[in-house]
Amino acid sequence: MKAIIVVGDGLADRPLKSLSGRTPLEAALKENLDAVAREGVCGIMDVIGPGRPPGSDAANLALLGYDPLECYRGRGALEALGAGVDLRPGDVAFRGNFACVDEDGVVVDRRAGRVEGSIFSEYLSEIRLVSHPDVEVKVLPTLGHRLAVVLRGEGLSWKVSDTDPHRDGMRILRSIPLDGSQEAWRTADIVNELTQLLRELMSRHPINRERVEMGLPPVNAILLRGAGEPPAIRPLKETYGVRGACVAVTPTVRGACRWAGFDLYTAPGATGGVDTDALSKAKVVERILPEYDLVYLHIKGADNASHDGDPHLKIKVIEKIDLMVGYLLEKIDWSETYMAVTADHTTSTRAKEHVGDPVPLALKGPEVRADEVDSFSERSCARGGLGRIKGKELMPIILDLLGKMEIFGS
Amino acid sequence: MKAIIVVGDGLADRPLKSLSGRTPLEAALKENLDAVAREGVCGIMDVIGPGRPPGSDAANLALLGYDPLECYRGRGALEALGAGVDLRPGDVAFRGNFACVDEDGVVVDRRAGRVEGSIFSEYLSEIRLVSHPDVEVKVLPTLGHRLAVVLRGEGLSWKVSDTDPHRDGMRILRSIPLDGSQEAWRTADIVNELTQLLRELMSRHPINRERVEMGLPPVNAILLRGAGEPPAIRPLKETYGVRGACVAVTPTVRGACRWAGFDLYTAPGATGGVDTDALSKAKVVERILPEYDLVYLHIKGADNASHDGDPHLKIKVIEKIDLMVGYLLEKIDWSETYMAVTADHTTSTRAKEHVGDPVPLALKGPEVRADEVDSFSERSCARGGLGRIKGKELMPIILDLLGKMEIFGS
Repeated sequence: MKAIIVVGDGLADRPLKSLSGRTPLEAALKENLDAVAREGVCGIMDVIGPGRPPGSDAANLALLGYDPLECYRGRGALEALGAGVDLRPGDVAFRGNFACVDEDGVVVDRRAGRVEGSIFSEYLSEIRLVSHPDVEVKVLPTLGHRLAVVLRGEGLSWKVSDTDPHRDGMRILRSIPLDGSQEAWRTADIVNELTQLLRELMSRHPINRERVEMGLPPVNAILLRGAGEPPAIRPLKETYGVRGACVAVTPTVRGACRWAGFDLYTAPGATGGVDTDALSKAKVVERILPEYDLVYLHIKGADNASHDGDPHLKIKVIEKIDLMVGYLLEKIDWSETYMAVTADHTTSTRAKEHVGDPVPLALKGPEVRADEVDSFSERSCARGGLGRIKGKELMPIILDLLGKMEIFGS
Repeated sequence: MKAIIVVGDGLADRPLKSLSGRTPLEAALKENLDAVAREGVCGIMDVIGPGRPPGSDAANLALLGYDPLECYRGRGALEALGAGVDLRPGDVAFRGNFACVDEDGVVVDRRAGRVEGSIFSEYLSEIRLVSHPDVEVKVLPTLGHRLAVVLRGEGLSWKVSDTDPHRDGMRILRSIPLDGSQEAWRTADIVNELTQLLRELMSRHPINRERVEMGLPPVNAILLRGAGEPPAIRPLKETYGVRGACVAVTPTVRGACRWAGFDLYTAPGATGGVDTDALSKAKVVERILPEYDLVYLHIKGADNASHDGDPHLKIKVIEKIDLMVGYLLEKIDWSETYMAVTADHTTSTRAKEHVGDPVPLALKGPEVRADEVDSFSERSCARGGLGRIKGKELMPIILDLLGKMEIFGS
């Protein structure tokens, strides 16, 4: 037996006045999603807990079967893992930007004209801090002006604030500890020393002489945000012996899946935006499924449309996801495959943000207790046979259908 | 956005033979409660947990969003807080009666002829215990023969038994520790020394010479019961920045709301009994709602009728609550207001006590995912779109609708 979990980012919504009191899911043409609901068993799911708006990073940890309230350690490490950075438990990782600041430390350009940061890769590969010589520091350019910073050593904490002021025209911030621990104080101190050191080092880089001569902003600072440690989890592979794959573009989702022991795949034309090529993802799933027990397919777009407050765009994305599901319905051998369709959170298109309402869930496959729900939406699924479950409970339900769960007791 | 939570004390019931297998809610005329269910989303709620009969004090803590199993510390402090006594975390408070005991300590009259205890206010304002000089003791007459006793100091515990034998003709009891902790031993010792000291002090009060001459029972003892500390909670105001108000008469409900950071209101004619003026409470809600995010309206009566085993009286109370809800439906601006209608526990009119069945819940307002339930009762709400939730989950759901919940993760 195999399983596919299809997670539509921010797919669920609240009823919208502009859709005559329907949600975008209720208003969309989605015969394939409805077919999954009709053939399967449905329910609603509190990804974190009732009334708790999930962040995407914590939400996907929950859908992988982990208790986000226990294991979540911030976004930075997930994003770094997703970008291919190697981390160990206890590492503290940040997302960062190459930026341009003036002599007073005021941010002139948060992205330094979208500089290609890889030019600094070698130059910044051997950083040592005078006050913290025991801490290993890695500055790893990822894509464009983006980078990851990894701190490795004893006694670090992810509970420190950003140095990125998140706006041009503001001074670069001092990192402060976010709890009273020794580790947080120490880490904030490290971040501040590192920030200062990087400003000095980068200012001296020959590229900046060239840039200034050419009238370009110098790339003379790194802004850090989203401190995180790898989540405190055991890979699903170790716990359940499950061979998992992830088809996703979003770095935090890829990071969570990687730390859970999944192989990572992307798909041609998958952009992480509303223009993403959904069908291309389905084809990757079709291709790799023979080699795996479980494929986790995360698809963006609906969330973006909600954050932009555009219900009609959200409907279009849903209809594209529906076609993707239709491709899978046609191509996969369903006599030996389960499929769950759900969302990682509800995004309110009116409020343009994540909200705490439960998400719909439909689960089809050879041995589910199919119910009478015949459409896939927030309200129809609430009448389903799964009732109301928590996000972290979905994975055990699926692993059990795959015969991977051990008896508790004897 | 604003919200009103209407809690009918003991509103829910089990099916009764005397009502042809219906519950009082099912038998009552309640078009306004039904309207809330019809326009809203419904569910059932285990206030403490499935099959666990809630006490009113713990139940209302749960409905305020706290985990009663974590935070509950007995009734005494809630009642003292509700009576206006100022408490700090760690204080141990008792409810008490001014009473009359004979020379052997046998209780002659648990209420000392319903004496007005305030005559002792000043006389008992400076109590010091010989063996525990570090403990501050306050004896605070509240209403009639009732009082609160507050112990303040290091190393106290609420895990001690009552001195009140709860019946005339029995000896005043020695308080004993209810767990093995040092603190409980110490507190029981304090309570026993205090009880002895108060007997001596009060016997010497001039009023008792007068009373004996007039043939009245002397007021020569204080009986203590219901030791409690303030619940281990953070005010909702601090955690969520929510401005809350409580409209209630019941001291424990008022105490819980006060400790949660709510302003307290009562209403003319609100008695806490079956004769309470429900409409008067609705008018207070109407008046104060503009100043608050959240109004918690607790209404007694149905519970009293159940404890008396009178289903027809319970139906009458339900119909009165229905009119109260009707007033709100007419007067409030529902384009910006949510309303939840529920109960703090099920009270079995047959058993005349609280039982562990879930309570019905209906939630209406601008953005709820309204379902097809069209009446408000224990059974109809079980088919609703909220499914089955826990008592402590209602408040986050409502706060999320008010936009007060923060994202977990990022």
